[in-house]
Formats: sequence, structure tokens, C-alpha cells
Amino acid sequence: MLDEVLRHIDSNLDDSLARLFEFLRIPSISAQSSHAADCRKAAQWARDTLAGMGFEARISETAGLPGVIAQHHQAGPEKPHILFYGHYDVQPADPLNLWHSDPFDPKLVDGPRGKKIVARGAVDDKGQVVSFLEACRAHLTTTGTLPVRLTILLEGEEECGSPSLIELLTNERANLAADFVLVADTNMWNFETPAITATLRGLAAAELTITGPSRDLHSGLYGGIAQNPITALTKILGQLHDSEGKIQIPGFYDGIAPIPETLQTSWSNLGFSPEEFLGEVGLAHPAGEKNQTALAQLWARPTAEINGIFGGYQGEGTKTVIPSTATAKLTFRLVPGQNASQILENFKTFVTERLPQDAKPTFKLSGAAPGFAVALDAPFMRAAQSALAAEFGKPPALIGGGGSIPVVEIFKTQLGLDTLLAGFGLDDDAIHSPNEKFDLACFHRGMRAQARLLAAFAEN
Amino acid sequence: MLDEVLRHIDSNLDDSLARLFEFLRIPSISAQSSHAADCRKAAQWARDTLAGMGFEARISETAGLPGVIAQHHQAGPEKPHILFYGHYDVQPADPLNLWHSDPFDPKLVDGPRGKKIVARGAVDDKGQVVSFLEACRAHLTTTGTLPVRLTILLEGEEECGSPSLIELLTNERANLAADFVLVADTNMWNFETPAITATLRGLAAAELTITGPSRDLHSGLYGGIAQNPITALTKILGQLHDSEGKIQIPGFYDGIAPIPETLQTSWSNLGFSPEEFLGEVGLAHPAGEKNQTALAQLWARPTAEINGIFGGYQGEGTKTVIPSTATAKLTFRLVPGQNASQILENFKTFVTERLPQDAKPTFKLSGAAPGFAVALDAPFMRAAQSALAAEFGKPPALIGGGGSIPVVEIFKTQLGLDTLLAGFGLDDDAIHSPNEKFDLACFHRGMRAQARLLAAFAEN
Repeated sequence: MLDEVLRHIDSNLDDSLARLFEFLRIPSISAQSSHAADCRKAAQWARDTLAGMGFEARISETAGLPGVIAQHHQAGPEKPHILFYGHYDVQPADPLNLWHSDPFDPKLVDGPRGKKIVARGAVDDKGQVVSFLEACRAHLTTTGTLPVRLTILLEGEEECGSPSLIELLTNERANLAADFVLVADTNMWNFETPAITATLRGLAAAELTITGPSRDLHSGLYGGIAQNPITALTKILGQLHDSEGKIQIPGFYDGIAPIPETLQTSWSNLGFSPEEFLGEVGLAHPAGEKNQTALAQLWARPTAEINGIFGGYQGEGTKTVIPSTATAKLTFRLVPGQNASQILENFKTFVTERLPQDAKPTFKLSGAAPGFAVALDAPFMRAAQSALAAEFGKPPALIGGGGSIPVVEIFKTQLGLDTLLAGFGLDDDAIHSPNEKFDLACFHRGMRAQARLLAAFAEN
Repeated sequence: MLDEVLRHIDSNLDDSLARLFEFLRIPSISAQSSHAADCRKAAQWARDTLAGMGFEARISETAGLPGVIAQHHQAGPEKPHILFYGHYDVQPADPLNLWHSDPFDPKLVDGPRGKKIVARGAVDDKGQVVSFLEACRAHLTTTGTLPVRLTILLEGEEECGSPSLIELLTNERANLAADFVLVADTNMWNFETPAITATLRGLAAAELTITGPSRDLHSGLYGGIAQNPITALTKILGQLHDSEGKIQIPGFYDGIAPIPETLQTSWSNLGFSPEEFLGEVGLAHPAGEKNQTALAQLWARPTAEINGIFGGYQGEGTKTVIPSTATAKLTFRLVPGQNASQILENFKTFVTERLPQDAKPTFKLSGAAPGFAVALDAPFMRAAQSALAAEFGKPPALIGGGGSIPVVEIFKTQLGLDTLLAGFGLDDDAIHSPNEKFDLACFHRGMRAQARLLAAFAEN
């Protein structure tokens, strides 16, 4: 049965591609209000496509751009209920002059690994969404139904921070009571190796302003006797890491569990070369905790990064000023077990304990999201691993992600659902950049892999 | 004889004031090329005034605005030769809307200590220059000559960094072979207490840029493994001072002599209140070396100030970036005995020794000027102290200056001359600000004091 589904995909590749091209031609840039009508057009295209496949599909309005909700529950209540998440909006295309063709006139061009689809949204996320829809279509055409109960949720504001997603989930809560969420918005490890993103880091942000004198001072008239807020700021932040790279905020590492052996094994088998990874950006040495592997520094260990710093004179030459204030912007990448809001509080303590006289701190704290780790022993994980292994001839890499995928956090907190992150992009796809592409082979194997995943979920 | 000179000053105060007002009405703003003709007019006014008093006076051209050179050597070769320095140019007057009257229409208005002269340049430096010229006039009118040989040098570009001063000194070198320089561009300690500025701090500047990755990185994708140049910069600069406020650059304090006892005594008698001085700018605690008095921190001890710092994101909210570079701008205030260029070299060493892996420093070093200390036992110092004590009924305070006065350095290096800094301004004169003023009493006592100084120099 599954073989027939896969053959259907293979023999209808041109039709699938034509539908993806239709979708890609709609410039659904959510960040630009001039494209609001295009966004609605893309939502409508998705709704109509899903309705045409037999889904109960509709537009779900929000204060911002609408979502698309589609349901196909014919498989029956004994089958798992999967919530598929994707987004129909895309990033702005500029700088336009760096594109080799119109970003909204998709082209199939030659690449190092065969043909590639070039367009804004080719992979992020229209290509990945259409891969999944075409997998569903192949099941429906071949067998008349889907192997699982399926709800599809397509968002229209992912590329501008998902301002209406919580509203959308709240409105649709009753329709979203699935067993888990499947997200196809991530990458494979490489062209030969599929991947499941098993961990992600969370984020908390802190802005610290140190105020010294009540106005800018002349460093000749006041230098030596007046507290310089830049000096105070560097003195405090210079103590953020010890000489071993460990973060000195009290209790920062509290609650962090060791990296599971399954992941350690998977990571050590990846052949990751820190020299190569860092060499591409002009660096040579892993700069994190000395007793951690490079991949652990990147995926499993929390960070404290100063993302911006400013104070005093920034122009050409010299200005002999002692400024009134100096500011630093920090973000903390967090891992499961850490208490994000406690860490922000402890950062305040860290600063306050190191404040010199006449230095007054002001804090802006925001965005405390914990880290994510998939339940490695969940049934959907076993299913996904075997389905991907069957398609690619090797088991998927259980990789980590150094950044955050906010929807994963939102599904957990709003709906209590775990997320399976399996996608078919590649690191060189240039998402958010000019000449975004999706290898045709990845689109093709993505459809096949998604068809296998649907079948595998039904049996687990 | 001197009594007659002083009586002449007292009885001709209105005429002196009228001449100062003439000078003040010329908007000789050197920074604005639209006022170039006004600057030449001010130079011409000074030349004509000096010529009218019997000086051999002329305009001395430079590539920029001209100087005025005037000589009166009738006193004969056995008398000391004094080089008086002042400047005929003024600061721009804006913001004009904050002035209570036209900055170039001088007014005599009531102030807390009697009448005050309000105009741009009222004290800086036209008022101080005219005080000196009127003292000369009183001697010449009363006795027919001056008690010393005198050369007057008026510069026209002091308020825009003296770009042609070295050219002027080079051109006029043969005419400037004096015993010392007298500069009237400084303040009294307070309304009752005259002052000689006995020490000044020099300046050296360093800009340090740390480069980490070759481009800005996403702190999720690279955070933890990539060297963050802001972190490296804060780590290095956070070690600039130890917990006692001592600067940690190797050899930084080499060559500094102890503060002479004469100065220590003078300073401790000033009744300086660090609480009051700092309280005006929102601070409370002297922030320099813990084992030094507040005035020593301000006047006698060198500093390392971070005047500016920048790197990464400075906008609203959060950007999860690891920037490619981070920069700090520093200046060092230096005191006599320190080797300015050696200190800049040692700063490089200080940074280099603390550099983490993958952090590359770039330095811009500039402006190494040593500190200044007048020879306390010079004959002109004894003369000045007794003349000022006679006028004010108390000896002058031997104060320090935390900043630099570049001409002092230039006279030393170009002409080998020491400088006597005695002026009659007050801290509340608002120089460079709207409603600049010169208390009429200060103008009057300034003339009398200058007349006494000329007489005293002749006897020492």
C-alpha cells in the first residue's frame, strides 16, 4: 500500500511542482502591510487546495493575518491525531538586486546536486508545506483516505514574530486536541542524512543600563573622581564568564540534566568539525565551556551573550567625555531544566553585587522561554526514526538546535503538546536571503518521507 | 608709582569697559568660516589698539586666521621679557534662543556679586585680554613706559584647536625669545581667592577594536562556540582598574613624583568639598585611587577613562546577534613624569596579554602630551604670588587643572618656555555656553592684578 503511495509521488512529481510554483507566485510577505492582500490570497490558495483534497478547510480570522485550519478525521478515533504546523507567509525579498531571477517567479535551475527550485519561500516554508500536502494527496488518491487523523494549521505571521498565534490557538483550541505536533520547518543534517531536531535552546533577554553622573562630564574636569558608567559596565560584564568559560551568574546551571546518552552518541557520530564550522566565519577555537564538546556548547549548554553595548562617544577621533550612562543588551540561551525567570532575577543579583559606588542599574527583562527537548522515547519518535531510516537508508541524526523555534514553546504552553521537528531543508538553502532555494531532490524525498511518516504514525 | 597706576585703573573703569565692549561687538567666531572677516576685524582692532598704546604692533599671517604680534621693549635688556598670550576668537554663540540678550551686543546687568558683563567672549578670552591691555595702558599713561619688556601674542584659532599656532610660533620664533609666558585664560579659586594653576594633566588617546568572527553571527546558531568580541572587550577593559582604583597597565605610574608639599598644603587649605563638587552632577563618592585625596584624584593622579564603547545591536528590544567587532575609545590623563608614548605601548601589551583566542585587536593611538607642572621656585612664581596677595589680601591658591591647556604644552615644546597661568574668571562664568559673563569686579580686579604683576616681574 505504502509502495503505491510512494510510486504515485514519483510519477506525479511535475504536478506537485506545478502546485508548489502556484503557491510560490503569491508574494505573501507578512512583514509588509502592502502585501496583506497577497497574504490572504496565499491563505485562500491553501484553503482551496486542502478543500480540493477532501479536507474540511477554512480561513480562521485573527486580529492580524488569518490562519488556515483543515481537518481530515476519516481514519477514525483509534488512530493517532496529528497536528501539522506550517506557515504560508514568507520573508521580504530584498535586497532585490542580489537575486538572479524574480523571487516570486519560481525557476527550476541547475545546482551542484541536480535541479533546484529558486524562489522566496522555496523551502521556508512553502516548499516544506507543499511536500506534506502532496504526501497527503498521494495517500488520499491511492487509498481514498489518510492513515491518521490529521489537523493542519497554517500560520500567516511566522516571519514577523507570530503576533496572533496565541489568539489563533485560543480560538481554535477545541479543534487542536491532537497527540503531538509535526513541524516541517527544519533541515536535514546533510544531503544524505535526515534529521530530527531533538533539542532547542530557549531565550531570556536582559538590558542593563548603568547610570553614573546625572549628565555627561568633561573627562579633564571630572576624570578620576567621577564614576564612569562604561568602566563600571565593563567591570561587571567582564566577570560574566570565568577563565573556563563558565557563566558566573549564581545558580545559572541549576536544574540542567546531563545530555542523554542517545544524543551524545548521535552527536559524536555526526562527524562535526568545529574547525570547519568556525573557519567559515573566521574563527578557529570553540569559545564556550572548556569541559564541553563543541556540539554541546552549541546545542546543549546555556550561554550568556552580550548582543550589544553602547555608551559615550562613538564618532571619529576623540571626545574627552565621561558619559552619564552605558548600556548592554544580553540574551541567555537556555536549556531544559533551567528556570528562565529565576535566571533573569539572578542576573540582577549578579550585577547588583558587583556595582561600584555611584553606579545605578536599570534593568529591562523580557522573553523568558525555557529550552526544549523532545521525549526521546515517545511513540512518534520511534515511528519517525524508522520512517526516515526507510526513506534515506540510514537512521536520522538526532541533532540539536542552538536557537529557539518559538512555536514549539507556544504549542507546549498553550496546548500542552510535544513537537516533532523533522524537515527536509539544507544548510545552504539561503533562507531569508537572496536566491533562496530548495533542492528538487529534497522536495521529492521530503514528499516521500512525509508519506512514510503518516503511515508510520498510524502503526505506533 | 604703582599706586598711581592702580588709581588710574580705578578712575578710568568706564573707558576700559567701553573698549572691551567695542572688542566684544565683533563676532569673531573662528569655527565658522562665515565669520572669517569678523575674525580679521577683531585682529585689526587689537593691533590698532596696541599700536595706539605705543606698541610696535602688526598682523602676522598664517595659513589660517592671523595672529597679532605686539612688542614694547622700552624697559631695556636688563628687565625680564614677558610673552603674554591670549586669543581674540570666541566660541560659536548657539543655541541663540537660550541667550537673554544678543551675544554680540554686550550688556552690563545685575548679578549676585554686583554688575556683570554679559556677551560671548566676555571672559573667554576678550575680557581677560582687555584686562591685561588696560593694565599696560595704565602703566604707559602714568609712567610713560612698561616695567618689563613685553611681547603680546594674540591667537585667532584657539577655540577651534589652534591649527596654525605652531606655524605662527615658527614664523615669529625670533620675536618670542622671552623669559616665560603669561597666560590669562584661567579662573580664580573663588570670588575672594586668586589662583595660579600650577599643574595640568596631559592626554594620550587609544581606540581599541576587537574583531571576533568575520561577520555578524546569529547568537542561536553560533552562541557558545563563537568568540563574542563584546565579551572579550568587557573582559579586558573590566581589568583596567583594580579594586583600589589603581590602573593595571604595566608601568603606568612609573616616573611620577610625589605631590610637592607646597601644593599639598595649598590644596588642603582650599576647603574643597568632594561631596558638593560631585553632588552637583548626581554623584557622591570619589571614584579614583582609594589612597589619594579627592583633589589629588582630580589634579595630580593619572586616569584611564573609557570615553566611548560600541558594538552589536543598539536599537530597541532584542537582536540575537554576535557582532563581528566591538570598539572602545579611551583617553589617559597624564601627569608629569609619565612617558605618554610608552604608556600607549604598554596599553597595547595590557590588551594583548588578556586577549582570548580568536579575538584580534586593532589599535589607533594618538595625541600623547605629557602633564604640566610649573616650577614652583621660579622667580616669576614668587613675583606672581606676592602681586596677587597684595591685590586680594590673601595669597593665591596654587591649584591644579584636571584637563589640558594645549598652548602650555606647545610653548614648552616649540619655544622651551615655561608658562604662568593666572586668570580672573570664575567657575560660574558659563564659558562656551549661553549668557557667558565676566563679573565687573573680576574685570576691575583683573586689571589691577595685571598691573601689579607687571610691576612685580620687574623686581624679580
